[in-house]
Amino acid sequence: MSKGKLYGIGTGPGDPELVTRKAWRLIQQADIIAYLAPDVGPGFARGIVAEAIGHDVCEIIMRVPMRIGRAPAQSIYDDGAKQIAVHLDAGRDVVMLCEGDPLFYGSFMYVLARLRDDYPVEIIAGVTSVTACAASQLHPLVARNNSLVVLPAPLPDDALRSRIELADAVAIMKLGRHMPRIRSLLISMGLAQKTLYVGHASLANELRGTLDDAPDDAPYFSMLLIYKGDDPWIMR
Amino acid sequence: MSKGKLYGIGTGPGDPELVTRKAWRLIQQADIIAYLAPDVGPGFARGIVAEAIGHDVCEIIMRVPMRIGRAPAQSIYDDGAKQIAVHLDAGRDVVMLCEGDPLFYGSFMYVLARLRDDYPVEIIAGVTSVTACAASQLHPLVARNNSLVVLPAPLPDDALRSRIELADAVAIMKLGRHMPRIRSLLISMGLAQKTLYVGHASLANELRGTLDDAPDDAPYFSMLLIYKGDDPWIMR
Repeated sequence: MSKGKLYGIGTGPGDPELVTRKAWRLIQQADIIAYLAPDVGPGFARGIVAEAIGHDVCEIIMRVPMRIGRAPAQSIYDDGAKQIAVHLDAGRDVVMLCEGDPLFYGSFMYVLARLRDDYPVEIIAGVTSVTACAASQLHPLVARNNSLVVLPAPLPDDALRSRIELADAVAIMKLGRHMPRIRSLLISMGLAQKTLYVGHASLANELRGTLDDAPDDAPYFSMLLIYKGDDPWIMR
Repeated sequence: MSKGKLYGIGTGPGDPELVTRKAWRLIQQADIIAYLAPDVGPGFARGIVAEAIGHDVCEIIMRVPMRIGRAPAQSIYDDGAKQIAVHLDAGRDVVMLCEGDPLFYGSFMYVLARLRDDYPVEIIAGVTSVTACAASQLHPLVARNNSLVVLPAPLPDDALRSRIELADAVAIMKLGRHMPRIRSLLISMGLAQKTLYVGHASLANELRGTLDDAPDDAPYFSMLLIYKGDDPWIMR
């Protein structure tokens, strides 16, 4: 009997209509879905595509508590990968759901690492929050021969500063409680007027604003976009 | 009479199934579509979504010859924006198609710059070639608190080197005739073994390989991905 296939599927930034046609079709056809979720509730990725999921689907839920350390998370991925492997060994395909894109800061890669050598895998790229935030602001993310750097906010100030100095366009993710420190850094670098803030991009509670509008305890799903390069609007 | 709305729509990296559900729906509903194209032929973005375009649709084609200088391209965007504005003034919506994402190195931004102050605009983010290439390789693009830098190959060696040195993950785009120079640079930096090559991601003629497999005259739609950070596979 041939083995089943693992699909790693990006569900995009939040709006169910920003899911690709291929992802939607594969989810509609799936008998077994897997996804990460917090202690309680279905998790963000499953929520985005809830409409596409059949009623009699088998669900493999990997519950990763918020702010868990790396070691216990690894045992959760071990367990999830084992549950997925049972189905793949039996010739059944498994669809794993991942918000945004599976390989762009996605935990799917930890499951992939455990299964890719032994099973066929296909990954369906998704719309990332970075381009969704630029779309919300109607502002170019990066243009011409400019460079773009994506930075996680937990990085120390020195690491952020040196990378921002060399970039033309910057996206800062995973803001959360780091927001006050990031705000001070950007002000000290003279970039406050070049910074846009977006929270919950593409969702009903989307927030668009400037650095001033970013709350001190920013949602995990929020981002700062900075345009330092040649102003694309100079081209008009 | 109220004005029409301009939609800037990302058509993704090439596979028509990697178009979002929202983009597909808006194209199916469109009476007027606009897009960039080379001297002859329909252009890449229109080709991706050809199946969704109605037979009696009005098409505004902005023909931008390859390797054109900036100044003449500006007059082409001026003309295109004027043609679009005629429809918007008459209350008709216009859908502009853009391969990948409209605001990620997309020429849509030049049309947007000319129209955004006078007309309602909505942008539909698309899957970029960067995440599509990572998906092709089944390899993480960027993980945890690592940084990602996106670099256009035409940048000079010094500019590329300093940015690559500071990054954990790198995507180098717009390779074309710059490929031999980029290859030498990456070898001199000791990164040859950490570099993956993808051409025509998500299409039937997709090429996946290492730095050795990249042709000296690489297609415009090809990319190098470099993973310098903590190896995500160490987590298994």
